[in-house]
Amino acid sequence: MRDVAVLGVGLNSKWGELWEMSLRDIFVEAALNALDDAGVDRVDSIVVGCMTSGLFVGQEHLGSLMSDYLGMNPAAATRVESACASGGAAFRQGFLEVASGAADIVLVGGVEKMTDVGGDEATYALSAASDMEYEAYHGITFPGLYALIARAHMHRFGTTREQLAHVAVKNHRHGARNPAAQYPYEITVEDVLASVMVADPLRVLDCSPITDGAAAAVLCPVETARKLSKKPVVKVLASAQASSTIALHSRKDLTWFESTAEAAQKAYRMAGKRPEDIDVAEVHDCFTIAEIVVLEALGLVERGKGGQAAESGMTALGGKIPVNTSGGLKSKGHPVGATGVAQVVEIARQLRGESGARQVEGARVGLTQNMGGTGGSSVVHIFETV
Amino acid sequence: MRDVAVLGVGLNSKWGELWEMSLRDIFVEAALNALDDAGVDRVDSIVVGCMTSGLFVGQEHLGSLMSDYLGMNPAAATRVESACASGGAAFRQGFLEVASGAADIVLVGGVEKMTDVGGDEATYALSAASDMEYEAYHGITFPGLYALIARAHMHRFGTTREQLAHVAVKNHRHGARNPAAQYPYEITVEDVLASVMVADPLRVLDCSPITDGAAAAVLCPVETARKLSKKPVVKVLASAQASSTIALHSRKDLTWFESTAEAAQKAYRMAGKRPEDIDVAEVHDCFTIAEIVVLEALGLVERGKGGQAAESGMTALGGKIPVNTSGGLKSKGHPVGATGVAQVVEIARQLRGESGARQVEGARVGLTQNMGGTGGSSVVHIFETV
Repeated sequence: MRDVAVLGVGLNSKWGELWEMSLRDIFVEAALNALDDAGVDRVDSIVVGCMTSGLFVGQEHLGSLMSDYLGMNPAAATRVESACASGGAAFRQGFLEVASGAADIVLVGGVEKMTDVGGDEATYALSAASDMEYEAYHGITFPGLYALIARAHMHRFGTTREQLAHVAVKNHRHGARNPAAQYPYEITVEDVLASVMVADPLRVLDCSPITDGAAAAVLCPVETARKLSKKPVVKVLASAQASSTIALHSRKDLTWFESTAEAAQKAYRMAGKRPEDIDVAEVHDCFTIAEIVVLEALGLVERGKGGQAAESGMTALGGKIPVNTSGGLKSKGHPVGATGVAQVVEIARQLRGESGARQVEGARVGLTQNMGGTGGSSVVHIFETV
Repeated sequence: MRDVAVLGVGLNSKWGELWEMSLRDIFVEAALNALDDAGVDRVDSIVVGCMTSGLFVGQEHLGSLMSDYLGMNPAAATRVESACASGGAAFRQGFLEVASGAADIVLVGGVEKMTDVGGDEATYALSAASDMEYEAYHGITFPGLYALIARAHMHRFGTTREQLAHVAVKNHRHGARNPAAQYPYEITVEDVLASVMVADPLRVLDCSPITDGAAAAVLCPVETARKLSKKPVVKVLASAQASSTIALHSRKDLTWFESTAEAAQKAYRMAGKRPEDIDVAEVHDCFTIAEIVVLEALGLVERGKGGQAAESGMTALGGKIPVNTSGGLKSKGHPVGATGVAQVVEIARQLRGESGARQVEGARVGLTQNMGGTGGSSVVHIFETV
């Protein structure tokens, strides 16, 4: 297996409600930014992460569409889907293309255009990440599912309502330093606690938003990156993915994401790293409770202590292990298919020391964790400057 | 890159309108058949090819769903989409998993459940493979697009209406020998010419049907296959994919599939084979004209002679290069995400000498060609018994 590097990264300039841009426009802007950052204008292969462009805008066949609009034909181009982990799964496929030797320069992009439909339709589209026949058709959608996880965690570990709020407050504090973020402003614990109830105990400021956005990364062999780039070379130390039951009701333990724990174990093994080696992490905070459980499953925080980690500042900029310096899904936004690739964008910039006001000083090893549904799938990547 | 073999293959028992089975049931039946054929009960990774389960049945996140229902958690599991080439693209991803060393045993499955919606909804869902904003929204759907290709081919090369019919007649003659086929019976040229007009010159018997079905293949390193299997080892000599414009109106030449020609050139180079080395091929006959153009783009038939090839018997069982011995999309059925994997199932069985009444005697080298939309993407694989 060849060693793989991240040669360039990019987002479209601003995430949010982009009514003046179509799915293809958003993707192409992010991809061109990544190609510019990489300093290449041709790729052998394209992998597009997208959850449900079919339900959001009636368009499938995104590999062909994006290769066409980027002017990259006849490159191989494929779309990869794993619900909200589509971006992470796409990045893994791009990694395999380069690692296997099938391609030398690969563009991985993630995209979602979510605001062309109304709220009911968006809720239906996102429900397609759950077990539609056994969950959504019976009336439970994602805020309800994550509320069940939150209540179970509060009951078992004594996690407080305020600790949930601290996750959102921290991520908004980070996101206020990210100009591309959808909601780049700070909020307080009081704001969260006073916000509209969505699914008890989760309020609207516990939930990531509906977002239009795209992210892209260019991958190549490490040796190629050393030749082409004057920036620090960001090596992909590990790429790992795992699955768990798609339905929450099939789990043995509501307070644990088995797919994240499995993917993390594989990734640490492949990277030769331990949780304490990680300097900065981007994780899947689709709801505040998700970040709490994820950090425990990654071994970055002790079991049951995820809430305390947010409250104590341990996971904030300046803390022991800064998490979601980009603002996370909560503040930066969550265009579902783009999220996993955007995590890589943030980590690559952190490891290259380009994160400005939100830079983690001396960061050398970074981790991304991207998750589909209530953890039916998880993808973990580990990176290091070499 | 490691050498990769097809260890086992399977379809669900019967393709057609499977109203008593859901998406997951169909996939699991095919996957269990492939696992049984392979003689393994665990896999490291699963790749699911599916075009648009979101629009057909409101379900995405198929990697997690299928891993769950197959009892394969915590295996990595991802869904791959490239419109009607989703199955071929999924097979290529599975190939890369094994070739790269990331996984030792990989299950690749393709599935589509198309009959749970009405005709208008199915037409809309399939249109998502075209450029929705610039083709389907203006009123042209796939029969119309392929009719344009047919008229251009007839005009330029003198291809006749009867030659188009011969493609359907040949594939139904083959499909009549395939018990899994949706329409396992013979038809005549007169039947085709008398059938209902869909989009001039294409009549309903020029069109592949709407189908529920699934197909699966188990991949592993060639060395592993030699140890595990007593059957002839089917090696994947080449896996290649290419893109072209998603919209037909952007093409320089309506009578050519550039993505197929590009993928074929790459595949022949990778395999060290020429078109004349191919003993049997499964190609994408979504409409009769498609098989004609595809065979020319693959170099299996001289440019402009695809229609004559069907009429003369050159591409029939017993001819110089038998094409679509399974019955092809026309007779076997076309569950879009499953088709590319089902082509591999047919070729693997042919190369193992297990095709009974439709066996190509002495077949050693086989080719599959799977295509999305009007050729916006194409995937070509070449196999040989070793």
